Amino acid sequence: MTRVAVCAPATPILPQHAVAITALAAEIAPEVELVIHDQCFASEGHFAGPDTMRLSALLECANDPSFDAVWFARGGYGSNRIAAAAIEGMDDVARQKTFLGYSDCGYLLAAMYKSGIGRPTHGPMVADVGRKDGDAAARRALRWLSDGCTGLEPSLGETPAVAFNLMTLSAILGTELMPDLSGHVVMIEEIAEHLYAVDRLMFHVTSNLSKCGLAGLRLGRVTNVPNNDRPFGSQPEDIVRFWCERHAIDYLGEAEIGHFAGNHIVPFGVAPPLARA
Amino acid sequence: MTRVAVCAPATPILPQHAVAITALAAEIAPEVELVIHDQCFASEGHFAGPDTMRLSALLECANDPSFDAVWFARGGYGSNRIAAAAIEGMDDVARQKTFLGYSDCGYLLAAMYKSGIGRPTHGPMVADVGRKDGDAAARRALRWLSDGCTGLEPSLGETPAVAFNLMTLSAILGTELMPDLSGHVVMIEEIAEHLYAVDRLMFHVTSNLSKCGLAGLRLGRVTNVPNNDRPFGSQPEDIVRFWCERHAIDYLGEAEIGHFAGNHIVPFGVAPPLARA
Repeated sequence: MTRVAVCAPATPILPQHAVAITALAAEIAPEVELVIHDQCFASEGHFAGPDTMRLSALLECANDPSFDAVWFARGGYGSNRIAAAAIEGMDDVARQKTFLGYSDCGYLLAAMYKSGIGRPTHGPMVADVGRKDGDAAARRALRWLSDGCTGLEPSLGETPAVAFNLMTLSAILGTELMPDLSGHVVMIEEIAEHLYAVDRLMFHVTSNLSKCGLAGLRLGRVTNVPNNDRPFGSQPEDIVRFWCERHAIDYLGEAEIGHFAGNHIVPFGVAPPLARA
Repeated sequence: MTRVAVCAPATPILPQHAVAITALAAEIAPEVELVIHDQCFASEGHFAGPDTMRLSALLECANDPSFDAVWFARGGYGSNRIAAAAIEGMDDVARQKTFLGYSDCGYLLAAMYKSGIGRPTHGPMVADVGRKDGDAAARRALRWLSDGCTGLEPSLGETPAVAFNLMTLSAILGTELMPDLSGHVVMIEEIAEHLYAVDRLMFHVTSNLSKCGLAGLRLGRVTNVPNNDRPFGSQPEDIVRFWCERHAIDYLGEAEIGHFAGNHIVPFGVAPPLARA
């Protein structure tokens, strides 16, 4: 039995998300026991409860030795507000634990990776079960929580890797949450940003990462791009190639991550050989 | 006679903007001669012509000794793509010149300020003449281009100051365009961003600027905030106070800058005493 605690460091899920993910787990990963913290349904303005409530729920889940993993319920925005305090409050129990999530929860993954806490891992979240085309992603996460070796992003190898939402990575740069990414493959994905905003983010991110000595950069899916008043004039992969070339970062091709059914698992650092086999 | 060259480092203006601003100049600042570069009307995808065209138009205006000032036509997005090359191409003539603009043109103002080129100045642009409530802003810019001493942001004093669009400042951080802002008052403004995005930008900007030893931060207008799926839960000034306090930056109050009629002039650095009198 793998016991997985679910909490919401950013925005809340609905009770039907909890019902659906629990049913799905019973069906395809019966050896995974999901324990969904009540805080997941709290609401205060934009967030799943005030900062103090989200922080204490996260620390309860992280520091409880009866849980093997912490699964973030949903992104949306807000985990940056509690990330530094979360690191400070995590104990030796948390250091042995897997943490799974993506999108806005990238702030937490970054900060944990920087501090060597647990096994921060990019992958689908509980709320994906409620998204169009999200069911396959949620299934992939549950299987991985169960066996720890399926559903890995196909390009993963012996080079350490991380994966981030592009906007989230941009906001991490220069802050106390930013890990050392030298020698890493950095995978990025984006959702619901205009292409000019993707261009601006790539300017900012490649300018900053050019100093890090990356192994290279991969592009996941850029989804739900809003229409602009006029076409931007180039596509996401062209934008990424342009800025990688400008700032001397190797562009390595596509990655199977993003806000879509094919969102795969990226353990931060080097995935265990068994998992990559 | 003050000769002012107008070019568009980001997005284009329409011929009617040129007609309107020329008529307004003839009416209220007849000693200002506006010379509007054809590049202002060029269009390629999102931009006012390709990078090479926008760069060469900017350098023509900046390096021509017959012009006293360069006025940016419009923001929108794109001046970051040519800012570093523009600095490299600017000669001694450009170093004596005034450059006026804001919003996306903040990339150029930042880079020039960092390099000690000319007198970079935050203020209304040509395209403001076409905006609702923009006429008063355009008039203020024309009067300032004429006399060099009216329309200054009211809080300016002997402490050096800069003014930026918040998103633009966020994207400048950690790049080669970023000036040293130690001892400065930093004024920020924003348009058309969700409040959660303003919160995220303030997290990023105050995290980074907390290392700079600022004199403090002032908040201009946050306009055209899109509706979110739910209320964010706090207002722009609360957000700014929160992040300033979190990162030990003095919040000094409001500033009369932004995408609105009351957008005032902020010469980067210390404004001349005469102008502040």
